[in-house]
Amino acid sequence: MNVLIINGPNLNLLGSREIGIYGEQSFESFLESLKSEFPEVVLSYYQSNIEGEIVNKIHEAHFLSYDGIVLNAGGYTHTSVAIGDAIKAIKVPVIEVHISNVMAREEFRRISLISSSVSGIISGFGLNSYSLGIRAIIQMEKKI
Amino acid sequence: MNVLIINGPNLNLLGSREIGIYGEQSFESFLESLKSEFPEVVLSYYQSNIEGEIVNKIHEAHFLSYDGIVLNAGGYTHTSVAIGDAIKAIKVPVIEVHISNVMAREEFRRISLISSSVSGIISGFGLNSYSLGIRAIIQMEKKI
Amino acid sequence: MNVLIINGPNLNLLGSREIGIYGEQSFESFLESLKSEFPEVVLSYYQSNIEGEIVNKIHEAHFLSYDGIVLNAGGYTHTSVAIGDAIKAIKVPVIEVHISNVMAREEFRRISLISSSVSGIISGFGLNSYSLGIRAIIQMEKKI
Amino acid sequence: MNVLIINGPNLNLLGSREIGIYGEQSFESFLESLKSEFPEVVLSYYQSNIEGEIVNKIHEAHFLSYDGIVLNAGGYTHTSVAIGDAIKAIKVPVIEVHISNVMAREEFRRISLISSSVSGIISGFGLNSYSLGIRAIIQMEKKI
Amino acid sequence: MNVLIINGPNLNLLGSREIGIYGEQSFESFLESLKSEFPEVVLSYYQSNIEGEIVNKIHEAHFLSYDGIVLNAGGYTHTSVAIGDAIKAIKVPVIEVHISNVMAREEFRRISLISSSVSGIISGFGLNSYSLGIRAIIQMEKKI
Amino acid sequence: MNVLIINGPNLNLLGSREIGIYGEQSFESFLESLKSEFPEVVLSYYQSNIEGEIVNKIHEAHFLSYDGIVLNAGGYTHTSVAIGDAIKAIKVPVIEVHISNVMAREEFRRISLISSSVSGIISGFGLNSYSLGIRAIIQMEKKI
Amino acid sequence: MNVLIINGPNLNLLGSREIGIYGEQSFESFLESLKSEFPEVVLSYYQSNIEGEIVNKIHEAHFLSYDGIVLNAGGYTHTSVAIGDAIKAIKVPVIEVHISNVMAREEFRRISLISSSVSGIISGFGLNSYSLGIRAIIQMEKKI
Amino acid sequence: MNVLIINGPNLNLLGSREIGIYGEQSFESFLESLKSEFPEVVLSYYQSNIEGEIVNKIHEAHFLSYDGIVLNAGGYTHTSVAIGDAIKAIKVPVIEVHISNVMAREEFRRISLISSSVSGIISGFGLNSYSLGIRAIIQMEKKI
Amino acid sequence: MNVLIINGPNLNLLGSREIGIYGEQSFESFLESLKSEFPEVVLSYYQSNIEGEIVNKIHEAHFLSYDGIVLNAGGYTHTSVAIGDAIKAIKVPVIEVHISNVMAREEFRRISLISSSVSGIISGFGLNSYSLGIRAIIQMEKKI
Amino acid sequence: MNVLIINGPNLNLLGSREIGIYGEQSFESFLESLKSEFPEVVLSYYQSNIEGEIVNKIHEAHFLSYDGIVLNAGGYTHTSVAIGDAIKAIKVPVIEVHISNVMAREEFRRISLISSSVSGIISGFGLNSYSLGIRAIIQMEKKI
Amino acid sequence: MNVLIINGPNLNLLGSREIGIYGEQSFESFLESLKSEFPEVVLSYYQSNIEGEIVNKIHEAHFLSYDGIVLNAGGYTHTSVAIGDAIKAIKVPVIEVHISNVMAREEFRRISLISSSVSGIISGFGLNSYSLGIRAIIQMEKKI
Amino acid sequence: MNVLIINGPNLNLLGSREIGIYGEQSFESFLESLKSEFPEVVLSYYQSNIEGEIVNKIHEAHFLSYDGIVLNAGGYTHTSVAIGDAIKAIKVPVIEVHISNVMAREEFRRISLISSSVSGIISGFGLNSYSLGIRAIIQMEKKI
Repeated sequence: MNVLIINGPNLNLLGSREIGIYGEQSFESFLESLKSEFPEVVLSYYQSNIEGEIVNKIHEAHFLSYDGIVLNAGGYTHTSVAIGDAIKAIKVPVIEVHISNVMAREEFRRISLISSSVSGIISGFGLNSYSLGIRAIIQMEKKI
Repeated sequence: MNVLIINGPNLNLLGSREIGIYGEQSFESFLESLKSEFPEVVLSYYQSNIEGEIVNKIHEAHFLSYDGIVLNAGGYTHTSVAIGDAIKAIKVPVIEVHISNVMAREEFRRISLISSSVSGIISGFGLNSYSLGIRAIIQMEKKI
Repeated sequence: MNVLIINGPNLNLLGSREIGIYGEQSFESFLESLKSEFPEVVLSYYQSNIEGEIVNKIHEAHFLSYDGIVLNAGGYTHTSVAIGDAIKAIKVPVIEVHISNVMAREEFRRISLISSSVSGIISGFGLNSYSLGIRAIIQMEKKI
Repeated sequence: MNVLIINGPNLNLLGSREIGIYGEQSFESFLESLKSEFPEVVLSYYQSNIEGEIVNKIHEAHFLSYDGIVLNAGGYTHTSVAIGDAIKAIKVPVIEVHISNVMAREEFRRISLISSSVSGIISGFGLNSYSLGIRAIIQMEKKI
Repeated sequence: MNVLIINGPNLNLLGSREIGIYGEQSFESFLESLKSEFPEVVLSYYQSNIEGEIVNKIHEAHFLSYDGIVLNAGGYTHTSVAIGDAIKAIKVPVIEVHISNVMAREEFRRISLISSSVSGIISGFGLNSYSLGIRAIIQMEKKI
Repeated sequence: MNVLIINGPNLNLLGSREIGIYGEQSFESFLESLKSEFPEVVLSYYQSNIEGEIVNKIHEAHFLSYDGIVLNAGGYTHTSVAIGDAIKAIKVPVIEVHISNVMAREEFRRISLISSSVSGIISGFGLNSYSLGIRAIIQMEKKI
Repeated sequence: MNVLIINGPNLNLLGSREIGIYGEQSFESFLESLKSEFPEVVLSYYQSNIEGEIVNKIHEAHFLSYDGIVLNAGGYTHTSVAIGDAIKAIKVPVIEVHISNVMAREEFRRISLISSSVSGIISGFGLNSYSLGIRAIIQMEKKI
Repeated sequence: MNVLIINGPNLNLLGSREIGIYGEQSFESFLESLKSEFPEVVLSYYQSNIEGEIVNKIHEAHFLSYDGIVLNAGGYTHTSVAIGDAIKAIKVPVIEVHISNVMAREEFRRISLISSSVSGIISGFGLNSYSLGIRAIIQMEKKI
Repeated sequence: MNVLIINGPNLNLLGSREIGIYGEQSFESFLESLKSEFPEVVLSYYQSNIEGEIVNKIHEAHFLSYDGIVLNAGGYTHTSVAIGDAIKAIKVPVIEVHISNVMAREEFRRISLISSSVSGIISGFGLNSYSLGIRAIIQMEKKI
Repeated sequence: MNVLIINGPNLNLLGSREIGIYGEQSFESFLESLKSEFPEVVLSYYQSNIEGEIVNKIHEAHFLSYDGIVLNAGGYTHTSVAIGDAIKAIKVPVIEVHISNVMAREEFRRISLISSSVSGIISGFGLNSYSLGIRAIIQMEKKI
Repeated sequence: MNVLIINGPNLNLLGSREIGIYGEQSFESFLESLKSEFPEVVLSYYQSNIEGEIVNKIHEAHFLSYDGIVLNAGGYTHTSVAIGDAIKAIKVPVIEVHISNVMAREEFRRISLISSSVSGIISGFGLNSYSLGIRAIIQMEKKI
Repeated sequence: MNVLIINGPNLNLLGSREIGIYGEQSFESFLESLKSEFPEVVLSYYQSNIEGEIVNKIHEAHFLSYDGIVLNAGGYTHTSVAIGDAIKAIKVPVIEVHISNVMAREEFRRISLISSSVSGIISGFGLNSYSLGIRAIIQMEKKI
């Protein structure tokens, strides 16, 4: 089983940025613990600060036949029609995740332009949101 | 470990209502499978169509020291300040869950009056949203 | 033929409340004249000031196989997603009625959260709105 | 007793237009059945696609002393202050009717510029809305 | 000097309609007193309930070289882009007049789609608004 | 003199909930000090988390001829048309009170659906708001 | 007959300010021609850039029994509830005038906080708006 | 092949109106060059300033089996639900055209009430927009 | 104990202005009865129609160490950021009072720019609102 | 004659994405037929999912002196001020094209941030929109 | 070279007001350091809490031929059309300055009614904003 | 001392683009004069049309320990949450600059998504805005 994790803008700073909100762990070190948690899953990871490169990666997931994408689009969540369209254009299920509870932060973070395209949303559980996202993909697969 | 599942209005009809959206399984039968999935958790279940009774139950969870609440507030998600206030008034973590992806439905379902009070949100995974919610509570506990 | 009339909050005061708008007749006495007008219909009547109890009653109508519901949801017309969801969840046709022409009153009464779920709307004919609602249900039945 | 039915724009196509929404019967043939249903009422019928001609007809009803008008203003319902003003300018009671439940259709159909001027509203019962409208006028008369 | 007065929808009822707001005098009888007040002006008068006929008349004023138009567009004031465009399309100055103070009435009457196209606005002086409008045109002429 | 105090949702937790905002005193113990402060007043107290039960209690105050109601509707302040209608339906004066200054908190708390129905509003004085509310009722009575 | 002209902020610069919009004539020199035009009227003139002083002057007009006020509130037209309240508080009729057609300028100038309090509005005729305003007051008087 | 061109309000003034925006050519003379450009098409032309007459003409196109309509609804583009409904009611494809780029003009011209009913939109190419519209209809036909 | 009462624009007309809303008593005569009611308080009184003078007076209260301010900002309640800032800039508690229930009047009176800066709000009790405001200050003092 | 076609995000998937909306043909194969249709035009083609690369390409067209650009900005149509600025910064005419009628789709697709910068808009004709766009550029050239 | 600094409401309290936001230095002492920093500039200083006096001072700067104005309009920034009009009425360049970054504070501070009239804006640099404002004026002069 | 200047989309065209607004000087030649003006500062310069590359550069400034960033985000000012988040994620102070006064241009340019994250804003001084921005950073440093 193949799952792709895509992180959007500023998530490369995880561990060194606004620690009060996002915690002290870098995503790379967290990725190791994720791999231990899901030994049956081949986890790929991609991060970019460029909106269009995220669109490219979502397309690629389509052609490489991933079983699912766990996507934290960061700030693009609130401004990108292009990413929302990319998700709708492919058949691979996409799970939208957020580290913090975006609904409890600034007003503009309550509007998501990609939520209506994804399969499901997981938000507010810290880095654990990614773990729950992978689990959700596994359970989707089981049903098929 | 004690977890309380609270279902709001119309969720008592699950399995017989709008099957295209909500599926064919009744919540009672699903609850059995949930208990099998989490043998280490004592699962309690409550359903009410009355907003204030849900407020009461959330208070009760506070005094009975539950470890977490998985709450699907149904239609009250979009109209109840009282339930949002109740969640803020207690220390028990509350996970907001939805069976369908509410962000992909009617406009008025995109506004939630309780999201800014909860610990995290899980939406769009069918009945599996409840399973992910319980897992999230277990993982929260572990960290403490 | 079985028809259920449901009245929402404050309609229990009919006859003693804001007579200028709602008239002097109590609903109970009006109910008698309704029964005379429709001898072929078994009319049941329910009133509650509690939103969730109205949801319960709508569910009940589903299981008791009423032929139609005449619903005056009062103030809940403008604030209840839960009642709207309940109507959509059942197959019994629901007719929304109002005594006064709500469109000619305060701004907030121009927004209805249940109108998009009902079969039809009758508004502004005084207590006669109920009579027209019952007639509408009879005529629906005839077509089937 | 004299009642005038006024149909607004596009309702001349009834029976040949969007049959899924409006049904297969032309209004002329339906008018015959209406006349049979209300033998005690002299029914007049007018249709125009021109907003100002509908204003003219409403004025005429005033001078010809009709007992009531059943008005389906079609698309002008949502855009005409002039028709709303015409209704307010006369003493003949006007019943607003709609074939479909306009509240369950496009957003712009939820706004009515004439509703606050009419006596009552009947919406969503197919062609039967007209029948209920005439009955409402008859019952109004009785009370006087 | 030639001045054209154009009255829009429902103003043909003046004197018999909503006397509390518009007064008891018919426009025809008032027109006589206007003519006496301005013996040096040739006053033409046109009334129509049809938006497009008002557009036609405004065009005609252009080709017949009127010195000015006094326009009370009634309800079309608030809904007609076409009349606003017609005014912009001609060189004859147009004075917008209203009998009542529209700014002190319903909210929707505070929005005018023609005000940005006219030379000036006179509102709230009863029928005297027309007199002031003609005087304004005379004074404009004098300056040239 | 008879005054009824009604507290809405979550106010039963007073003293144990969000102490930073609402203080440490339970309402029951505060009620004793209120009774001492107003020995000439018979104070009744009612609390419910259920919107419709508050409507019921307001009706009851009408039939039991209370001299006034001091109402803290909590979260229902911002979402209940039904309670606003109930207040309008009775003749007993209702004073809206809030412990905190709701105008200085979240945006959604600035909208009140009951303020336009009450006699007066007192907000922001801690539990002392209730004391001022009772005094206001006494002074109203004196004037009569 | 006594008429008071009140000019609001920046109108003291008339003749030296934004000549393209307001023309080259100072108000003082224009006042002389106004006096010649209306020999039967005692014209008083007041200008202030201070909102509250305009409120004071409006009150004064009340106690000095002026027959009418011609008010160009300048920028305060769009921001002053206090001036609107002052106008409502007195019985002297107030005519709102504007030199330019404010409806054809910036968006924020389309909103007036005083229009709903005045007797009538004259806008867009250059300095001639004042002349029409005085004439309107004379005609009002005649009717009494 | 039969194509009907419909022009809405004020387009009869083309060539003599706001030449800076609309150019100096009258539509009649332009029509001749259009006929030369498309010798294989029978071009009919209709212009009216009256909204309802445009609705009538659209209906007529339906019964006369035109292959397509090129519609410039002028000011009615932004205010007419009736024309939008007429387009939806027929099967003939309708192409919405505009001479100027309406999106680069006043704010109110950015809202179109007919765009969601048409097959396609062509805007901003001067009179050439009509030529492109006819070509679009020809190409649609070819595909069938 | 020193308390300062500040009245904003138009409140100098109290007793002679809109008696239906504000009553017949002048504030000066009412002030005497207030002094009798609170013999232990030194009451100072200030009224101005000028926004900036109210700001000045609020600053002065700060330097003269008043124990509290009872402020009825009149029309400036809805338009003055400067007064709100002044209140925030000082440590003296400010009580916002209104004679009428502003929430039950025009829409624009429902927005207050100072409410989020004050300690508490009292609205709708006639002149008695001032009495309740002084009492609130006394009770605040007691707690310290 | 040189024309540049620029396609924005997700248009590289044409032919394999949402076939119901966008059709089965890939843009590359369509490009061949376009070249056949316009043998006199040198057609260049560029696609990118990255907003800033599209800005770069538009600048390049400026320096390489293209005769026109046919731009389908895809999702960036609704979110990119940068692309709108780029269009305004160059002299090459830009034609905005869309395959589907974006006005008949989701609400957020009705807002375009680039429309006010382009020369003209063609929308809703399938891939034929590109053909019409090229023709529009040819006709523009002819006039010069 | 002559530069006028104008400070609006509450800025007289600088150094004693909300020290966390505005710092501990009084403007008078800061003015001395400003004078040292710009020995070549004659600095005048004016502060008023009264909107209209600020308008007066801006006019005066016009007649006294200042080379520039550095204006911190405080709370009037967000509510004064009159000050914005005054700035537009004169030729002296006006620089809008703010001590704090107003864009990072309350929502209502993000709207400025004077920004569209000024030459430039400097915001967020503490008292140093004034220094940068004076420098900007010097550099403007140099270019002439 | 190290300062980084970042220019966003279309600013590479400076000197050749919309000269009326942005002037004739290229940024490269201006940069030389900036370096002469601030010999004590090491000035680095970066320009990109790609949103994500600007995010990257802001991160880099963090790791390379610049003393400050002068950022003109161009069109991304109004649409980029990602750049705003990047600024908040780093400790280097960022000064937002604009060449023109963006508040006096199109409506959509009045909304900035990055202003609430920056230290200060300088807008409207032509290229001199950059010079003032660097000076602001120098003065910030001095205080530390």
